[in-house]
Amino acid sequence: MKTTIAIIGYGNIGRAVEQAVNTADDLQLTGIFHHNDNLDDINADVAVLCTPTREVPVFAKKMLAKGISTVDSFDIHGQIYDLRQSLMPMARENGAVSIIAAGWDPGSDSVIRALLMAMAPKGITYTNFGPGRSMGHTVAVKAIAGVQDALSMTIPLGTGIHRRMVYVELKKGADFATVEKAILNDDYFKHDETHVVQVPSVDVLNNVAHGVNLVRSGVSGETHNQRFEFDMEINNPALTGQVLVACARAAAKMRQQQRYGAYTLIEVAPIDLLPGTDEELIRSLV
Amino acid sequence: MKTTIAIIGYGNIGRAVEQAVNTADDLQLTGIFHHNDNLDDINADVAVLCTPTREVPVFAKKMLAKGISTVDSFDIHGQIYDLRQSLMPMARENGAVSIIAAGWDPGSDSVIRALLMAMAPKGITYTNFGPGRSMGHTVAVKAIAGVQDALSMTIPLGTGIHRRMVYVELKKGADFATVEKAILNDDYFKHDETHVVQVPSVDVLNNVAHGVNLVRSGVSGETHNQRFEFDMEINNPALTGQVLVACARAAAKMRQQQRYGAYTLIEVAPIDLLPGTDEELIRSLV
Repeated sequence: MKTTIAIIGYGNIGRAVEQAVNTADDLQLTGIFHHNDNLDDINADVAVLCTPTREVPVFAKKMLAKGISTVDSFDIHGQIYDLRQSLMPMARENGAVSIIAAGWDPGSDSVIRALLMAMAPKGITYTNFGPGRSMGHTVAVKAIAGVQDALSMTIPLGTGIHRRMVYVELKKGADFATVEKAILNDDYFKHDETHVVQVPSVDVLNNVAHGVNLVRSGVSGETHNQRFEFDMEINNPALTGQVLVACARAAAKMRQQQRYGAYTLIEVAPIDLLPGTDEELIRSLV
Repeated sequence: MKTTIAIIGYGNIGRAVEQAVNTADDLQLTGIFHHNDNLDDINADVAVLCTPTREVPVFAKKMLAKGISTVDSFDIHGQIYDLRQSLMPMARENGAVSIIAAGWDPGSDSVIRALLMAMAPKGITYTNFGPGRSMGHTVAVKAIAGVQDALSMTIPLGTGIHRRMVYVELKKGADFATVEKAILNDDYFKHDETHVVQVPSVDVLNNVAHGVNLVRSGVSGETHNQRFEFDMEINNPALTGQVLVACARAAAKMRQQQRYGAYTLIEVAPIDLLPGTDEELIRSLV
């Protein structure tokens, strides 16, 4: 029996989820819903929520109320624990599993951070993002008067410090110096080194490449100078979609084990993300 | 209530486990046993098995029969699944948890391999070891006639290919050419590029540094060229001991959740490796 999957929200992430489901032999796509569609006749083991992040809580609750498990890539770091707590009783009462904040950061990076903390409990972990587009910063620039289109790139400078490279296409008659000043004074930018560059077209700059360089130097037992580094250079929506789909599989497995509830990715055993039997996976990966 | 820990076996790894337990506020060391000690009056929630790897199965069974959970760093890759299966019923019957093969490879590297497989299901992962001492290869050289002491270093050449640098100190009257030929024809060495170097003293070369470079290029959904790399440069026994201690904590947590059985590290949720509440860990790591 294949695990059945519905996709809610059909932007970049929704399309990446569709591709990841279609390349997995153990999963079956049973529906794609735009986020304003009627969801009354949705029919799936797991709903993958690909809506804007702020709409995730309401869709998760709608699905859990129907006994449909959910996964999402909710990415507002300060609100993840609260979302987990708000979904926990609904998931338990309805015999479902919700895996939240399950993209790459929060998500797979969180797993690496947890693992490195276990391997060297004292020390500092630096998560360096990019180069890549920051959605939050880009949206903040687009909201500024006089901006036609914008792109905010995150550039890693090491030790968790980032430069913001902001490319703006102005509306007719807008004044660059005024727009630049508004950006530099915006809360999203005023604490970081920020450069604003006027361009004739933002569209030609767009690229969904992203990356992470995650570094920890720490202490195992009483031994200092244990050094760890995780790097990736990836297509952002493709990886987010793939992690969501791996978590949809895990949600179905955890439900079969009656482990109802809401979880973040660090609460999921890595083996549950993968297709295949325990024997195959342990023999090939351990 | 602290989780109580006993150490069985008191070589390099046993001493590293002692240090890691003593630096953890939630754990309490209640005994250290040499592997030939009488274990009748052992008293602990979890026994950390630091014996030679071939003695792990017998000690694990002795402890599980008493209802004491176990962790070990059993490292014979081809026999890990079978060990898990042989311990599973004993752990379940006695209400205990056994986490096996829980060092860094097998162990934390296995978690990274599983996570990268979930992030990019198609592709090749290369695990490149070293530079560092290979215990198995070193023991094989020491068994050769005419060898007084030996050290076999593993040198990573990329794509999972390794060079063996073998340093030998000869017994009086032994012939270097004969020893060299025996090493090059040994099963441990004949498939790898191997260089044998005679030295006056192996002791002055010893260093417990080790490393890994784990690389995957793969496909997320239908998107190729997703690139991932994990590197570490570490003190080998210190990291092994620390991972064992994190797993001792996880074994105690999983036992409280009545998840009795035998598990490899890829079957353990990363959060269970860490001290602290779910709320603290999710807020700081996710």
